[in-house]
Amino acid sequence: MPTLVMKFGGTSVANIDRIARAAKRVGLEVAKGYDVIVIVSAMSGKTNELVGWVDETSPLYDAREYDAVVSSGENVTAGLMALRLQEMDIPARSWQGWQVPLKTNSAHGAARIEEIPTENINRKFAEGMKVAVVAGFQGISPEGRITTLGRGGSDTTAVAFAAAFGAERCDIYTDVDGVYTTDPRICDKARKLDKIAFEEMLELASLGAKVLQTRSVELAMRYKVRLRVLSSFEEPSDTAGTLVCDEEDIMESNAVAGVAYSREEAKVTLLAVADRPGIAAAIFGPLAEAGVNVDMIVQNIAEDGRTDMTFSCPVNEWIRAEKAVKEAAASGAISFQDLVVDHDVAKVSVVGIGMRSHAGVAAQMFRALATEGINIKVITTSEIKISVLIDRKYMELAVQALHDAFDLDKAA
Amino acid sequence: MPTLVMKFGGTSVANIDRIARAAKRVGLEVAKGYDVIVIVSAMSGKTNELVGWVDETSPLYDAREYDAVVSSGENVTAGLMALRLQEMDIPARSWQGWQVPLKTNSAHGAARIEEIPTENINRKFAEGMKVAVVAGFQGISPEGRITTLGRGGSDTTAVAFAAAFGAERCDIYTDVDGVYTTDPRICDKARKLDKIAFEEMLELASLGAKVLQTRSVELAMRYKVRLRVLSSFEEPSDTAGTLVCDEEDIMESNAVAGVAYSREEAKVTLLAVADRPGIAAAIFGPLAEAGVNVDMIVQNIAEDGRTDMTFSCPVNEWIRAEKAVKEAAASGAISFQDLVVDHDVAKVSVVGIGMRSHAGVAAQMFRALATEGINIKVITTSEIKISVLIDRKYMELAVQALHDAFDLDKAA
Repeated sequence: MPTLVMKFGGTSVANIDRIARAAKRVGLEVAKGYDVIVIVSAMSGKTNELVGWVDETSPLYDAREYDAVVSSGENVTAGLMALRLQEMDIPARSWQGWQVPLKTNSAHGAARIEEIPTENINRKFAEGMKVAVVAGFQGISPEGRITTLGRGGSDTTAVAFAAAFGAERCDIYTDVDGVYTTDPRICDKARKLDKIAFEEMLELASLGAKVLQTRSVELAMRYKVRLRVLSSFEEPSDTAGTLVCDEEDIMESNAVAGVAYSREEAKVTLLAVADRPGIAAAIFGPLAEAGVNVDMIVQNIAEDGRTDMTFSCPVNEWIRAEKAVKEAAASGAISFQDLVVDHDVAKVSVVGIGMRSHAGVAAQMFRALATEGINIKVITTSEIKISVLIDRKYMELAVQALHDAFDLDKAA
Repeated sequence: MPTLVMKFGGTSVANIDRIARAAKRVGLEVAKGYDVIVIVSAMSGKTNELVGWVDETSPLYDAREYDAVVSSGENVTAGLMALRLQEMDIPARSWQGWQVPLKTNSAHGAARIEEIPTENINRKFAEGMKVAVVAGFQGISPEGRITTLGRGGSDTTAVAFAAAFGAERCDIYTDVDGVYTTDPRICDKARKLDKIAFEEMLELASLGAKVLQTRSVELAMRYKVRLRVLSSFEEPSDTAGTLVCDEEDIMESNAVAGVAYSREEAKVTLLAVADRPGIAAAIFGPLAEAGVNVDMIVQNIAEDGRTDMTFSCPVNEWIRAEKAVKEAAASGAISFQDLVVDHDVAKVSVVGIGMRSHAGVAAQMFRALATEGINIKVITTSEIKISVLIDRKYMELAVQALHDAFDLDKAA
């Protein structure tokens, strides 16, 4: 039998009715002849309740006990889902992480999956079980303690199961109906993509398109797991959602697949930094230690042994960034003439594997922004992405202009 | 190190504050030099919430999935309790049933404990752990599925751990401060007992004194586990609560230890039953099949091959009882002249191991009731118990009169 992995997030199993609705979708796939592995999250709100209790009990908690407590939400959903499937006369049973066993390392709270033996579940499939319902987000350490996989852990569980069982596809059911060319709340011409390449999805995920966790996309890319994102609130259909897949599975693509943005950015510029080998490390080392998530970095051409160094970070981190840099200066590790902070910037990016073969994407992007009178403050580029920092007030306008300029409302 | 088992019920761990309070009591015992095994229930209300979800999902549920869902409440408390103890600098860790592993049979929902290996927990005690916090009410089946022990399962877990680890005592923390000579709500002279024998506790438990589950007392009696019942809401003290112990540990005792009652009883009499060998089985077989919990049974002397047969059952079961008996009559299995039901009776019992050596307890009991003008409808006796059925309206009066008659307000 071909195997399918289906993952349901917290809002898709938020209560008994929704669990029943999700079970119905599982039933449709069983009817098509699949052996199905269902990965479930905790009912929405439950994990937060558990985390709240842990924080209240012990602010600096033992991560092993945190994991033992927090993993219980998924176990509840798994049992309820199995019961619901049984009510539909579908042979199903639940599996907690340690029962599979999903083996992880001992990094409690953010464990890495090491192995998913398939014997136990495959034996049950051979005996006639049609659905294995697995509690997501959790595993067992070499010491026999319960571990959790951290943020996005249920998506990662799903992809790892799909890889281990050689599943035909991994369907991630969530509360959005797919991946869009940009945020439909900002640009009403935004169009749902039928397909997107892993690399593009990775860039979009890390740029704030919160559909799939970066970690699960990376894993899918490594093991070539075809990943479909779709809504559990839409009518079932074979063309629903967005397929995240290998570049080769996408016949024809636009130069640009999507426009991403990040609203809450700050730009920090150090003017006339004394330039010398190792100066970048002397600046960004202290920033990393201070927990500042530096994103873009640009260094201008040095004149007279002096250079301007600009970086961006989340706007709520600029005070920490300024403090770290000033302390580094006070300690004599670096020297600069002035520090200028711009708190009111946003980042806008165009992403697409098509850029590799389409020349002039950058020029086209800058022209579109110029036409709207939007000044570009910082530019960085990668192989499949061009990002700019602009004044925050122009962000929506920039997204819309770029969406138009690259004809993203039309399929390739 | 001597070992102590402490069990906290749902109201004693109902929220984070109460868990902290319970942890403080554990700390006191650790300070005395004990290695402590703490057995916890789910936070009160949580198990009902989980059971409600199961019932809503699947009215005729798979008991294996029921167990997987319902056991999660205890896991949460166990982790939180371990965290709280760590906050107090007490080395502690949580254990879920399968981690111990507490081995049970496969009777999901009402599993029997088969073995509690002590190696894992003892190894941690040897390494310096002071408290093992164990999720009560749950174990693991030979098939590797989670089982629950059914009603009273957490008390039973505690006693079983005390037996397995040779604990000095098993303290059951609950919301009452001990076992009383009778219900203080009915008789204001009711006195808390310092000690009570296992046999007495068993009779009182099955008669409706809801302090300890019968099953845990039976287990304690078999393995001679000293059991203390005490309130987690009282100030800690060495003389708190009631010790349930072996008869030999009680130096001197009253003839009667307590007065128990059961308010909601019905009395059913079959008049002029055709008496023949096997007639009792012919009557009570169908009643058992109909799920009627028959309690007292009295058969009068037969005359002319006819006898009167009287039994009692919970008042909400008499309609079922009547139906079962009439069907048995219709099928020709039994025959009787008439069936008389009295719905308004209560059972009052005096219990005490002292009865064995004190003559005349029954006579004293009947005299006390006669003095109050209370008519006795049915009498049954066992070695350490005398029970009577009386009109329900006299129940409180009877309890008070018996409490006075046997001087239960005074210690032995």
